[in-house]
Amino acid sequence: MENLVSMKDLSVEQITAILEQAKAFREGATSSLKNKYTMSNLFFEPSTRTKMSFEVAERKLGLTVIPFESGFSSTLKGETLYDTVKVLEAIGIDALVVRHEQNNFFEELVGKTKVAIINGGDGTGNHPTQSLLDIFTIWEEFGTVENKTITIVGDIAHSRVAKSNADALSRLGAKVQFVCPPEWQGEFNCVHDFDEVIESSDVVMLLRVQHERHEVSGIFSKEDYHQTYGLTVERERKMKDGAIIMHPAPFNRDVEIASELVECDRSRIFKQMENGVYVRMAITEMILKGRE
Amino acid sequence: MENLVSMKDLSVEQITAILEQAKAFREGATSSLKNKYTMSNLFFEPSTRTKMSFEVAERKLGLTVIPFESGFSSTLKGETLYDTVKVLEAIGIDALVVRHEQNNFFEELVGKTKVAIINGGDGTGNHPTQSLLDIFTIWEEFGTVENKTITIVGDIAHSRVAKSNADALSRLGAKVQFVCPPEWQGEFNCVHDFDEVIESSDVVMLLRVQHERHEVSGIFSKEDYHQTYGLTVERERKMKDGAIIMHPAPFNRDVEIASELVECDRSRIFKQMENGVYVRMAITEMILKGRE
Amino acid sequence: MENLVSMKDLSVEQITAILEQAKAFREGATSSLKNKYTMSNLFFEPSTRTKMSFEVAERKLGLTVIPFESGFSSTLKGETLYDTVKVLEAIGIDALVVRHEQNNFFEELVGKTKVAIINGGDGTGNHPTQSLLDIFTIWEEFGTVENKTITIVGDIAHSRVAKSNADALSRLGAKVQFVCPPEWQGEFNCVHDFDEVIESSDVVMLLRVQHERHEVSGIFSKEDYHQTYGLTVERERKMKDGAIIMHPAPFNRDVEIASELVECDRSRIFKQMENGVYVRMAITEMILKGRE
Repeated sequence: MENLVSMKDLSVEQITAILEQAKAFREGATSSLKNKYTMSNLFFEPSTRTKMSFEVAERKLGLTVIPFESGFSSTLKGETLYDTVKVLEAIGIDALVVRHEQNNFFEELVGKTKVAIINGGDGTGNHPTQSLLDIFTIWEEFGTVENKTITIVGDIAHSRVAKSNADALSRLGAKVQFVCPPEWQGEFNCVHDFDEVIESSDVVMLLRVQHERHEVSGIFSKEDYHQTYGLTVERERKMKDGAIIMHPAPFNRDVEIASELVECDRSRIFKQMENGVYVRMAITEMILKGRE
Repeated sequence: MENLVSMKDLSVEQITAILEQAKAFREGATSSLKNKYTMSNLFFEPSTRTKMSFEVAERKLGLTVIPFESGFSSTLKGETLYDTVKVLEAIGIDALVVRHEQNNFFEELVGKTKVAIINGGDGTGNHPTQSLLDIFTIWEEFGTVENKTITIVGDIAHSRVAKSNADALSRLGAKVQFVCPPEWQGEFNCVHDFDEVIESSDVVMLLRVQHERHEVSGIFSKEDYHQTYGLTVERERKMKDGAIIMHPAPFNRDVEIASELVECDRSRIFKQMENGVYVRMAITEMILKGRE
Repeated sequence: MENLVSMKDLSVEQITAILEQAKAFREGATSSLKNKYTMSNLFFEPSTRTKMSFEVAERKLGLTVIPFESGFSSTLKGETLYDTVKVLEAIGIDALVVRHEQNNFFEELVGKTKVAIINGGDGTGNHPTQSLLDIFTIWEEFGTVENKTITIVGDIAHSRVAKSNADALSRLGAKVQFVCPPEWQGEFNCVHDFDEVIESSDVVMLLRVQHERHEVSGIFSKEDYHQTYGLTVERERKMKDGAIIMHPAPFNRDVEIASELVECDRSRIFKQMENGVYVRMAITEMILKGRE
């Protein structure tokens, strides 16, 4: 694995190897990298958890991390992403995590630079490390992903999480179904009645209503969304024994999820973030090992 | 000590322990922490000296420091401070320094997260690490704080330094008095004539005129303020032998203090900043030791 | 060498020592510093390559690097550069790289602070580390700088690179000539016909058209500039065997240089950036060694 830009590039074997290595890190394994590597995290869109999760993971692997400030860089002088990455290659960066608002930004990079590219989120496209931490969380919870029913709820059309997850979870043998308003259905087959599927779900995976991408209020009030497509206290009571709640976060309290459910027994929301560090360690180590 | 949010929480014994440990660090002691810890500095308001002072202190203690950019984080997506801190707990942060514009921001955090919270300044409320470095500077200068006359001059009502210091210095046996314009008196008893108290002061502690918080020019011109409440060259001459000048900085030259006095023999302004690193090392180490 | 603010301060012997040490680092030498040092990079203007190049160089030397965010510092509260630097001196910073929009900003610092100052670019004045990496690149290419013909093309009057380079290259025995529009000639003797000098040049050093400093479109269209003062594919064909192309970057594709020439065989543009790390290691180590 030289880069990680999309879940589509990963075979079931590679996904399984990442899960196993993430588990090993979780249980205390340390880096087995032989050389010193230098990384940088190029986030052109705001992020707390993905960026800081990578920052922690990189330091746990003993890497040198070079700060990059997108709001204060030469991209302000009109430099293209390609030229910026070639600069970073020249000054000795081995691998980059890149988040960029442009879908498939990585197509202009992969194969044209010696820097390894890890996709930290591209527009409405992919978010493979989020997918892998979601899968890891389900796999750790149930011991397998196979035959589990995963219900993804929310803005399916614009979500990079939904797309990345749908493909991979299906290939791992899970049953994936979508719940969303007709307006946000996109190319996917979706159920529009959340209550119809709540009882049969092993995992209820809520997506964030992205106020900054489009105006939800044009379609719903927050309260309406919560009642129709949110996980209310009433809906949570209908979930089956052992079923869990997931959300990639940041979450909108009382929109996608009732505030009192955020830290309830079924919730794995903060567990997902904890797992994110181990998954990102596994991915980063695997990519850097490919250079040894 | 699990957190440090306000001087009120510290007993005289705890304050003394911090002063002694800061002195030990000043004299070359190194960290006695047994484990590896990860910290982050969450500054939601601009800061050079407090933030960079913590950054230096944390590295001198051998900690891993994870960068946080408040202007580029998920708080822009509406995430609450509580949720941000829970994320950081999940990804493995042990302690946070937080500066936030909201008074008592820490009330929604302490007791609800495993992350240790160090208050780096809350609105017009508290600034305990500044207080402790001020106290350390006086204690080092005179060998004691007891019976020293400390005159705090400036915007008493809006100053988190004045509030934090007033309480602690009094408990340590100092005599604290305030000089300020009637408009900025707040709940405190203040003298309005600086010249009345200048000769009896062991310490003249000037506060910054906070142009960014309220428009001083609506009340005074800078020159008027300097003549009435500033430390002019003439006033400095009236100070007694061995008396010192302090200022938490950043200072406004020729407003709170005559420009030529900033680095004069009596000035401990840059000494305070130097001491800040040792005091912050002591506080941080003490809090992290409580986790071992 | 206590500071590096201008090429003028460096003797030919000092320049040669820097080139030799940069070469040693390039060939794998490691830091020979005996003590631990702490640095910070104060960039008050946007930068990717200079800032990140220093960040990498400092870490390769094993230094502690303290982050500084100019857009979030006390300079926003009106603090002067001098006072900011005195603060950093107090908290234990040994050396600073400073980029500032004010020409000769360093004059208010050098000799007044114990912090070593490395000029990372001052307004339209100096950019000595860029000059040194340019010289290093030529020296490595040809084994010497002597008797080489260096043609610098572009906005000579406003370029800190042109000024820094012109002086130093001449002292090292090179023949330096300038090509520029009459409007951008400033105090320099310039040729206005690029084609007149292209064939005799060993090095064609292109300068960036600084759209953010002044409106080029008021004088030229981008296409006009490219045809008259840019390195077109046709002009490149006229260059002599072994002649090379340089650019301090960020470059504007199809303005200063035809896009397809950026990575052509003659181009040393990314090589310059690679060399920048070694040159900055050499300079920084030399300055810090002066403190041992």
